[in-house]
Amino acid sequence: MKKPSAAYARAGVDVDLGNTLKDRLPALVRQTHGPRVLGGIGGFGGLFRAAFPDMKDPVLVASMDGVGTKLKIAVQAGRHDTVGEDLVNHCVNDIAVMGARPLFFLDYLGAGKLDPDVFTAVIAGLARACRRAGCALLGGETAQMPGLYHGADYDLVGCIVGVVDRKNILDGSRVRPGDALIALPSNGLHTNGYTLARRIIFGKLKLGVNDRLPGMRGTAGDELLRVHRNYEPAIRSLPPRTLHAAAHITGGGLPDNLPRALPADCRAVITRKQLRVPPLFRLLQEAGKVSDDEMLRVFNMGVGMVLIVADSEAAATARRLRGRIIGRVERGAHGVEFV
Amino acid sequence: MKKPSAAYARAGVDVDLGNTLKDRLPALVRQTHGPRVLGGIGGFGGLFRAAFPDMKDPVLVASMDGVGTKLKIAVQAGRHDTVGEDLVNHCVNDIAVMGARPLFFLDYLGAGKLDPDVFTAVIAGLARACRRAGCALLGGETAQMPGLYHGADYDLVGCIVGVVDRKNILDGSRVRPGDALIALPSNGLHTNGYTLARRIIFGKLKLGVNDRLPGMRGTAGDELLRVHRNYEPAIRSLPPRTLHAAAHITGGGLPDNLPRALPADCRAVITRKQLRVPPLFRLLQEAGKVSDDEMLRVFNMGVGMVLIVADSEAAATARRLRGRIIGRVERGAHGVEFV
Repeated sequence: MKKPSAAYARAGVDVDLGNTLKDRLPALVRQTHGPRVLGGIGGFGGLFRAAFPDMKDPVLVASMDGVGTKLKIAVQAGRHDTVGEDLVNHCVNDIAVMGARPLFFLDYLGAGKLDPDVFTAVIAGLARACRRAGCALLGGETAQMPGLYHGADYDLVGCIVGVVDRKNILDGSRVRPGDALIALPSNGLHTNGYTLARRIIFGKLKLGVNDRLPGMRGTAGDELLRVHRNYEPAIRSLPPRTLHAAAHITGGGLPDNLPRALPADCRAVITRKQLRVPPLFRLLQEAGKVSDDEMLRVFNMGVGMVLIVADSEAAATARRLRGRIIGRVERGAHGVEFV
Repeated sequence: MKKPSAAYARAGVDVDLGNTLKDRLPALVRQTHGPRVLGGIGGFGGLFRAAFPDMKDPVLVASMDGVGTKLKIAVQAGRHDTVGEDLVNHCVNDIAVMGARPLFFLDYLGAGKLDPDVFTAVIAGLARACRRAGCALLGGETAQMPGLYHGADYDLVGCIVGVVDRKNILDGSRVRPGDALIALPSNGLHTNGYTLARRIIFGKLKLGVNDRLPGMRGTAGDELLRVHRNYEPAIRSLPPRTLHAAAHITGGGLPDNLPRALPADCRAVITRKQLRVPPLFRLLQEAGKVSDDEMLRVFNMGVGMVLIVADSEAAATARRLRGRIIGRVERGAHGVEFV
């Protein structure tokens, strides 16, 4: 088979470039593979052995997500090795709150024109986070779509599959009125609220990505690209049955995410002053003149994950995981109340 | 919790619109759920029971893919109910060629601004194809990313997970020199080559999406939006052990995809005149002045799937599945030769 003429490359899709990139992948990807992964790389699908002899009724838990416009900051800052970590950790957290441990992950990278260095950095970040999370990077797709993605823009999407024994699924049914809410700190915006944050920092404050943020140590790029924390090790470290439920605080903030971990007849009551809101959020609120309520719905406000445990276990659990007790579960209308 | 102020909506992300859309989903999505799906919709992840008592060594097969710039045609034509089917069928085929049957599917829809009608049409297409494929639509993510997606553009990504008993994995190891190659017909471009096709039809020929294609029955929109065929039922209908391997003909065409189904010491030899190239491809080649070799690498050329079976089974299998014998497997350098 001869090499194709340049006509397809002219239309913006360089098949050979795509193939060259595929050649760089195997070493990065194989580092994430354990004995459950079968076959080589380059098949039509990834293969993962699904026998779970230590479980009575294994249940797969799957979630799909993106990084949001945090990608725009990566492009502005020219740093592409962290967004893959953001995505993997986000996905790992989403299934960890249901009690699952991660098995494998697949990614999709859509771009107008593939830059090999950007691509390699993104995949390296994905692979690093997968390896740390004990998760196989089982497959992925790279799409060159000129005319859909503009300039250096790209979108990055991930799908994770994990497993939990049915009796250990966290679905809110173990939560009781009187249980304590423990906040595990976020280390920044994680992957939510970037559209508003960009508007405030780059629009209203007219800062550049390399400018230091007022009152903070790092540049806008540093502070906005901090990697979404992975809370799965913290959850896994808890003694069995300690955790009644957990909520990953992403888009929609505490008000939208915490109820997903509660039974229908319970509400969460959070003491506002127990939230230790980090400086970045206070800067965004002041500069953007954003209301308290909206801040809570758009940003994580310093809370990356909420664990729900029995009141009697709360102090020890919070100490151990460096979290804070921020409130209680009460019987009442499903939702979150801030007092 | 009060409704947030308009500031976030102004920045282009309307949390309430997102929530409204989520309310429309459950009915569409539940139609695809069988008894293996646990829990409701709206959890952090989808739950799927993973006991496979009829299998000795169950292996999960996973694949991630997009629709490519076929999406641009959907936007131009204002028809959004077929691209979801394209995506599901594409993914189903990718794991079917490894011997797997589909279990569940997740989607990602990224857009600048969500149009509720477009969104509903896309999800309806996904749900329809999932139901037909016997596949649960287990989860999805919708991201509003103003500044990344422009105008009415959106990207659509899918992840499928299926299962196969290890002894039934199709990995090329059953293929023998002398085996026959059976082409199952595509019904159009499926999901590949759209960047070049758009350039030729809308650029060179200056046709509109509602103009009839020269020498063809339908408009450009009709012909370019034909739904990617699902070949999994055809594969499943074959007697056990009949199928030695299969290749899904997607990006890279026959030359790039057929070798993935072959052992390292085998090549595929295809008789060019046995390819019955449909009029759409001939139109594209003539109008675009595209070489034969490039046509074969960019487009499926009328072949959506290649099945590899023993020579003795070839005629009966081809007749039964309305396919054509297009060539043979020979010992030799890994690849595809056209004679």
